[in-house]
Amino acid sequence: MSYSIQTALVPAPQSYETVDLQIRQDKIAAIGAHLPPADTVADTIIDTVIDGRDKLLLPGFVNAHTHSSELWQRGLIPPLPLELWLAELYDFAPLDPEQIYLSALGTAVETLLSGGTTVVDHLVLIPGREAETIAAAVRAYREVGIRAYVAPLVQDQPFGTGLPTLGTAQASHSPASASPEQVMSTEAVLDLLRDAVRQFHDPVAGINLVVAPTGIQLCSDALFEGCAALSDQHGLCRHAHLLETKAQKILAQEKYGGSAVAHLKRLGYLNQRSSLAHCVWLDDYDIEILAETGATVVHNPLSNLRLGSGIAPLLKYRQAGVNIAFGCDGSASNDSQDLLEAIKIGSILHNTTDFEYRHWITPREAVEMAALGGATGLNAADQIGSLTVGKQADLVLYDLRSLSLLPRTDPIGLLVLGRPTQAVHSVWVNGRQVVAQGELCTIDVNQLRQELFERSAWQSPRQSAMRQSMEFRYRELMGLAI
Amino acid sequence: MSYSIQTALVPAPQSYETVDLQIRQDKIAAIGAHLPPADTVADTIIDTVIDGRDKLLLPGFVNAHTHSSELWQRGLIPPLPLELWLAELYDFAPLDPEQIYLSALGTAVETLLSGGTTVVDHLVLIPGREAETIAAAVRAYREVGIRAYVAPLVQDQPFGTGLPTLGTAQASHSPASASPEQVMSTEAVLDLLRDAVRQFHDPVAGINLVVAPTGIQLCSDALFEGCAALSDQHGLCRHAHLLETKAQKILAQEKYGGSAVAHLKRLGYLNQRSSLAHCVWLDDYDIEILAETGATVVHNPLSNLRLGSGIAPLLKYRQAGVNIAFGCDGSASNDSQDLLEAIKIGSILHNTTDFEYRHWITPREAVEMAALGGATGLNAADQIGSLTVGKQADLVLYDLRSLSLLPRTDPIGLLVLGRPTQAVHSVWVNGRQVVAQGELCTIDVNQLRQELFERSAWQSPRQSAMRQSMEFRYRELMGLAI
Repeated sequence: MSYSIQTALVPAPQSYETVDLQIRQDKIAAIGAHLPPADTVADTIIDTVIDGRDKLLLPGFVNAHTHSSELWQRGLIPPLPLELWLAELYDFAPLDPEQIYLSALGTAVETLLSGGTTVVDHLVLIPGREAETIAAAVRAYREVGIRAYVAPLVQDQPFGTGLPTLGTAQASHSPASASPEQVMSTEAVLDLLRDAVRQFHDPVAGINLVVAPTGIQLCSDALFEGCAALSDQHGLCRHAHLLETKAQKILAQEKYGGSAVAHLKRLGYLNQRSSLAHCVWLDDYDIEILAETGATVVHNPLSNLRLGSGIAPLLKYRQAGVNIAFGCDGSASNDSQDLLEAIKIGSILHNTTDFEYRHWITPREAVEMAALGGATGLNAADQIGSLTVGKQADLVLYDLRSLSLLPRTDPIGLLVLGRPTQAVHSVWVNGRQVVAQGELCTIDVNQLRQELFERSAWQSPRQSAMRQSMEFRYRELMGLAI
Repeated sequence: MSYSIQTALVPAPQSYETVDLQIRQDKIAAIGAHLPPADTVADTIIDTVIDGRDKLLLPGFVNAHTHSSELWQRGLIPPLPLELWLAELYDFAPLDPEQIYLSALGTAVETLLSGGTTVVDHLVLIPGREAETIAAAVRAYREVGIRAYVAPLVQDQPFGTGLPTLGTAQASHSPASASPEQVMSTEAVLDLLRDAVRQFHDPVAGINLVVAPTGIQLCSDALFEGCAALSDQHGLCRHAHLLETKAQKILAQEKYGGSAVAHLKRLGYLNQRSSLAHCVWLDDYDIEILAETGATVVHNPLSNLRLGSGIAPLLKYRQAGVNIAFGCDGSASNDSQDLLEAIKIGSILHNTTDFEYRHWITPREAVEMAALGGATGLNAADQIGSLTVGKQADLVLYDLRSLSLLPRTDPIGLLVLGRPTQAVHSVWVNGRQVVAQGELCTIDVNQLRQELFERSAWQSPRQSAMRQSMEFRYRELMGLAI
């Protein structure tokens, strides 16, 4: 299929201009004011003409960190810090691959309807059914037509070792210590990833496998090194959580005798294909390492607030030249997959951290971080992330006649600083139209709603046994009254 | 008209229950599981039965601080601190009462569609057309049917005196000093307010006038005292901005030789009818004064972030027993009027300020602050703010089949921590249905969109002369490099 989007507003330096844009197969074929009628251009037959009047055309954003299956628990976990929240999460995790399929669909739909064309799914695996979990998510992303980076969340150390011991407790940080919990061995994890790459990694079709140890808190050096090797072998992106909480920073000191970031650098895990979620507790020396290695920070402002993790030093990252992308994080810690919300809060939050307002993030800069910053974090800035002839056609057309974007002022200011509602008119991924007139073209969203409704029940927050068992130790660690 | 809402979910302690609720004229007449068929209840004739299945019923929220006419500049003002942002705002303020009418309509519609049934409009007045401005806003609120507290924003000192002098500059803080700017005298302001009360104050019809000096930065002691007297005479609510920025705290020290809060207490401005927007820069002693006087803090988390004002110490207010309400603030500093967004961010933001997670705001507490806290701040907790027989019927019914609220988990958790989209199904204010099936019943929203569209134009951020003239002084004050 070929498309011509006519008379759409696009950002120009300090202003806007009106252009036509032509999509041919999977790529942006032409952009310009008043392109000649499509059918007169050599070997370009335009199947569909889209009216771009009163609409803003932008490159698609990247939802650069999420966990799709958390959708099943959104709205449910009470206000708790990450370590206790995780206990609740894992005690009630979905165990049916069909649920994984449905929550991946839901995650993709919300991402697409908030301007995202790419999702990085740090996918929580069902124990014992790991390959099926990956297959279910891949199936969903293929059907809905979003560009997907599927990053199976792996670890080779048991959950209980994720908290610092402060020298007093029993847990050790050696791989797969004597915990009752079943943990895969390092080799078994790497085998799983090799199989998944063989079976599903298909960049041309928009499905990419990513190596993604959950983070320093539950992964051995050998796992990070094995993942880095696999990444080099297949050109895969690398992902991980990094220093989301103060407890993780204390843990790194205990495990490595120093900075987690310096340790990951020593392990060879940091390069231009690495994206690191959160990065809340880095110091200035850590920030230099990120800048020097070319790694990307994925900012998840809403989960950082909801879990009380802290405010990531985003203005410092920008000043140091570190690339930044935005993520929604999983729906149990946000509890939404609306990228425009993450972009808004991820921009304005940092104005409280520096009186020098000339450092603050402008709406245009935020949009560039969400699109090109996201693409750069996936080592794909040559393929997506901007309105450039020859790049893949990952595009979003916003309806500027939505009440939430009126009266007319600065379209990008309204989009980023407002709360756009029903503003996404059309979306293309890899040249395929997946949203038209604000509705998904690829899947039946009413059926998805029906399935989500029928497989769930209204409830009040529950009591997790694992959380209760951890709470004393956590409170002691954080110096909270017992 | 009388309504029966049948089989709706409502919160019960630690859980939910299913009830029927009857509205008779302007009040909640009955609530209970399986009420007898309406027409058998003595002298209750139910005109309309509403199916409450798969819906959540809550009391309406209060949008406890906004400035409706800022709608004309939303999305437009670049990231700037309050003092410079204000210069941009006033340089391009709307000057036509018809614009005031339209932006009040827009503010009301967005408030209603995000769960609000009451709006407190700290209304910026068109110079020389003050009475017309008030009339235009009142007309809009009557037509749309929202409960309105119209609070004309008044001052009796010129704009340039709103910054501290640090002993070096020329400005003095005496009333109406030798500025080229036209400022009304204290008496003229009070006359204006007296006239407005006479003409528009009509609590039974849902239109309330409020005394609302803009804040200590631009108002004399005589104006605060005059407003307090007028408030006592007519039982009016009192409103003001309070210590939104660090610059205002420095100014208070300069003007009063001490705390702005202690000064307002001395002037007799603080009581249970007083609500104070922002309260970012209060210290512990100030907080005690608020608790002791019964004044309400209106938290505007989004504008506090956007303007870099800081994070209000909300958890401290709760611990001190200070009543809290939520506001969107004006659309040029947010840039939306979505109360659910203000409630979400106003809850989770504070988790980063205290590691003791047992102090964090739960979704149920947030809902209570938004409804009953808002009502309390308007001295109206006996009339609105909860689902109580005998109170005014200010009610919102949320559709729990919205994709954004699925899968089913904890309905209030989803509403507060998620990003509800098209979730408001029906709204009643004073027993009058103003939203049905997600659409306004009282005004034509398509026509409003058309008017907002036609009276505006896409543009990029402008250059305000007033901002440029102030910038040097502001940067000097804040210790920023010149």
